[in-house]
Amino acid sequence: MAVYTDVSDDALEEFLRLYNVGQLLWCKGIAEGVENTNYILATDKGQFILTLYEARVEENELPFFLGLMNHLAENGLETARPILQNDGLLFSRLCGKPAALIEFLDGMAIKAPSPQNLFQLGVASAQFHLKAESFKIKRKNGLSLKDWQPLLKSCGDDIDKVAPEVDGGLQKFLSVELDFLKKSWPKKLPNGVIHADLFPDNVFFMHGELSGIIDFYFACNEVYAYELAIVINAWCFEKNGELNLTKSRAFFRGYQSVRKLEQAELDAIPTLCRGAAIRFLLTRLYDWINVPEDALVIPKKPDEYIRNLRFHQKIGDYKEYGIE
Amino acid sequence: MAVYTDVSDDALEEFLRLYNVGQLLWCKGIAEGVENTNYILATDKGQFILTLYEARVEENELPFFLGLMNHLAENGLETARPILQNDGLLFSRLCGKPAALIEFLDGMAIKAPSPQNLFQLGVASAQFHLKAESFKIKRKNGLSLKDWQPLLKSCGDDIDKVAPEVDGGLQKFLSVELDFLKKSWPKKLPNGVIHADLFPDNVFFMHGELSGIIDFYFACNEVYAYELAIVINAWCFEKNGELNLTKSRAFFRGYQSVRKLEQAELDAIPTLCRGAAIRFLLTRLYDWINVPEDALVIPKKPDEYIRNLRFHQKIGDYKEYGIE
Repeated sequence: MAVYTDVSDDALEEFLRLYNVGQLLWCKGIAEGVENTNYILATDKGQFILTLYEARVEENELPFFLGLMNHLAENGLETARPILQNDGLLFSRLCGKPAALIEFLDGMAIKAPSPQNLFQLGVASAQFHLKAESFKIKRKNGLSLKDWQPLLKSCGDDIDKVAPEVDGGLQKFLSVELDFLKKSWPKKLPNGVIHADLFPDNVFFMHGELSGIIDFYFACNEVYAYELAIVINAWCFEKNGELNLTKSRAFFRGYQSVRKLEQAELDAIPTLCRGAAIRFLLTRLYDWINVPEDALVIPKKPDEYIRNLRFHQKIGDYKEYGIE
Repeated sequence: MAVYTDVSDDALEEFLRLYNVGQLLWCKGIAEGVENTNYILATDKGQFILTLYEARVEENELPFFLGLMNHLAENGLETARPILQNDGLLFSRLCGKPAALIEFLDGMAIKAPSPQNLFQLGVASAQFHLKAESFKIKRKNGLSLKDWQPLLKSCGDDIDKVAPEVDGGLQKFLSVELDFLKKSWPKKLPNGVIHADLFPDNVFFMHGELSGIIDFYFACNEVYAYELAIVINAWCFEKNGELNLTKSRAFFRGYQSVRKLEQAELDAIPTLCRGAAIRFLLTRLYDWINVPEDALVIPKKPDEYIRNLRFHQKIGDYKEYGIE
């Protein structure tokens, strides 16, 4: 939960005058979003999310993030659309922070997605990739292969104690894996803009249908198949650490119903899954070690991704993910 | 901000089936309410607040609190109305906690209320008192005169350091004041159900008009004029510690436009103001000393109420509050 910046009613009304959204009826801080402060507000013209970008999202990247949301919404993807200010801008400042007003999206994140939901997510991911092709701005992935070694280093020398159950120590386990990934990482796969954070928190459903994708603040140019590897890690594992093949099969079926994967992409899936696992493992490890004393959000232990990574290490062929 | 209990979508949908409120569209935890977990949710029939009562609100008191809200709403007071379940109950359990669904109230708390807003609050307070006369259930004030001495004692022997600027020490200052209040507390004033927590956070305004009163969880049977003393403390002081006479005059004018105060009530105002100041001073002191390490809500220092109390101690006559 996170309301880092308290917006006064006066400041809010002044901000809303930059938009043609009618008169404010109410506004409530919501316990959503780890990186930003979010409010839900209503005017006589509708409901909106007000996002104030805190330290971790950089202002100079907002034209990419908000521009992408706008581009995808205009091209018919189910997503939250940023509202344009009267002068055409997508954001300005509120209480000293960059801030944007975003169309409210019906639906909610679900904790127990069905295979049908995974199929829908596959369809939406592929649509995301295709519709983003015509988007002009580019953004480098700030958490790609070459960033993982420095990220591990920044976690310090004392990480073994975070996961004492890892034989030989977590440090060794991760170093060996990073060496493997450096050697095996696929080159020259189809690529473009991906969401890069397609976790269950960021996908809304309503009446059993996918109603929208939110939180574009990790989106970047990357190989498409890496998005699929993230989804397998984030959606398709059971609590006991086993892969739910029905879900991953449904997801790939959905994706390929819109965009057929090339053979090289399919072959790369196991390695990309190891990469996606270590990427989230490392950021969780970093956050776990560096949790501030006044943290409003309790970080998650990286255990789940150690387990996922071990699973992927044993995979010999992409077909073991249920990909047909 | 506070979302202490995480409600799964399945549990929520099951809970909503107890009501005739249509199908769930979305649900978001909101950063509001110190004592409880609150969600805002929408169905195809409207918007609602879902409140889960955490430890501090006792289940056996909910028939009073929710019954009072329902009674006042039915009698035309601007307030949030609890939704009746299909079986006529006002609450049941969700995720092991007592939980109620409450009509969503437009409007928002304001940080800089105008004298007009204070007039409106006076009118609404008096209406609250009169409309609650026909409410059948009673509830003792759990934080009345006789509770203050034990509350002070429970703060321990080391409270002087909380307010080192108090000459002779905070302990002495409060003990002397409590002795005075014990001797001077008015007896037999007009009484009935009061809200007892009419702070700016708990009163919503929209388009400059009072749109509703929320958060009834301190309501109790008490002398009416004590409510007015709470409002003076909570709404009418400037940041520099001076009383804003225009606001307090407007508040009393609004109140008396609905319910005329008796002479005995007027005479008691200065003492009741000292009582209201020490009541909030003591609970803030207690919370300040006992802040849990994992607190989601940062307690407020009691300084403001030390200052208010000092102000009231110098008052010779109720007219100094601008009461006409």
